[in-house]
Amino acid sequence: MEQLRKAIESQGIGIGQDVVKVDMFLNHRIDTALLFAMGEAWAEEFRAEKPTVVLTVEASGIAMAVAAAHALGDIPLVFAKKSATVVQNEEMVQAPVYSFTHKTRNMIRIDRKYLPAGSRVLIIDDFLADGEAVRGMMSLCEKQNANVVGVGIAIEKGFQPGGKKLREAGVHLKSLAIVDEIRDGRLILRDE
Amino acid sequence: MEQLRKAIESQGIGIGQDVVKVDMFLNHRIDTALLFAMGEAWAEEFRAEKPTVVLTVEASGIAMAVAAAHALGDIPLVFAKKSATVVQNEEMVQAPVYSFTHKTRNMIRIDRKYLPAGSRVLIIDDFLADGEAVRGMMSLCEKQNANVVGVGIAIEKGFQPGGKKLREAGVHLKSLAIVDEIRDGRLILRDE
Repeated sequence: MEQLRKAIESQGIGIGQDVVKVDMFLNHRIDTALLFAMGEAWAEEFRAEKPTVVLTVEASGIAMAVAAAHALGDIPLVFAKKSATVVQNEEMVQAPVYSFTHKTRNMIRIDRKYLPAGSRVLIIDDFLADGEAVRGMMSLCEKQNANVVGVGIAIEKGFQPGGKKLREAGVHLKSLAIVDEIRDGRLILRDE
Repeated sequence: MEQLRKAIESQGIGIGQDVVKVDMFLNHRIDTALLFAMGEAWAEEFRAEKPTVVLTVEASGIAMAVAAAHALGDIPLVFAKKSATVVQNEEMVQAPVYSFTHKTRNMIRIDRKYLPAGSRVLIIDDFLADGEAVRGMMSLCEKQNANVVGVGIAIEKGFQPGGKKLREAGVHLKSLAIVDEIRDGRLILRDE
């Protein structure tokens, strides 16, 4: 997606071999116009799959899920939570997710009733690296007998295996930009 | 705001004396159409203050901040983060926030360069109870010499002191709904 590619090339920073820093427009400060253009791009890709709900995981996926759900005609969205709150609920479905960024293993969980059987689920997330978060969300859907009709990602790290594995598994995956390499702090994007 | 009041009255649940549960349309599953109507309501209230940036805190404030920023003409938004990540940054400004829901004290922090001096800041959050999160965000703004031009809240707990204190301090506060009491599990709303 041209607008996102331009933002990555002009503002994104690569750190070391594998950290893609896009804090300035995507996951700390958000360029709202770009965000809604991204929502439109995902909607265009996935509209024919007739998703009934958007699923993401807190925190930085939420903004992107909102934009996608809006572009798809204001369908509802659900975000999986990472930590239990004082408000407990027996009705949760859970899956483990390892975060390579935070070096932690979290459980993600959703209230079962917000992902009913037969839901047509569009998973949205900001990054795809090893695919752990997406796999966790797919696992939640499987446990609920909900159908994952697509996975929309803002930035895929093409040098990590998550995207390849999902495509080989036949998942309808759309990454709006793919970073193939970090070279001297620059983010090298795959041609569209 | 009528649409939010109806959602609270038909779907919201009160637990004990002080827990307002609106997971089903606001902060776990999100009713996207309602969310964008809320964004329009905040924009109408605060447009004249000419905000240049929306500030919120992760996680559940993000969706509302996106809707408000969009309705205000796609101004940028920044969300304060609650925990340090492996990607460290010396350029952070921080403030402490006590969460009565989670019974924890967090630091919230933002990258200084995303809240430059002179910014006209609209703070958006889902709940206002004791006002700790808003005070934390106001503290971040003060440290940055940014001006808080308004505070937009989805649901204020009228039986807790946050809203009263902010109004007495002369803050331009707009809560889209105020819960005055929890009575036998029902949420009693203040008349508009």
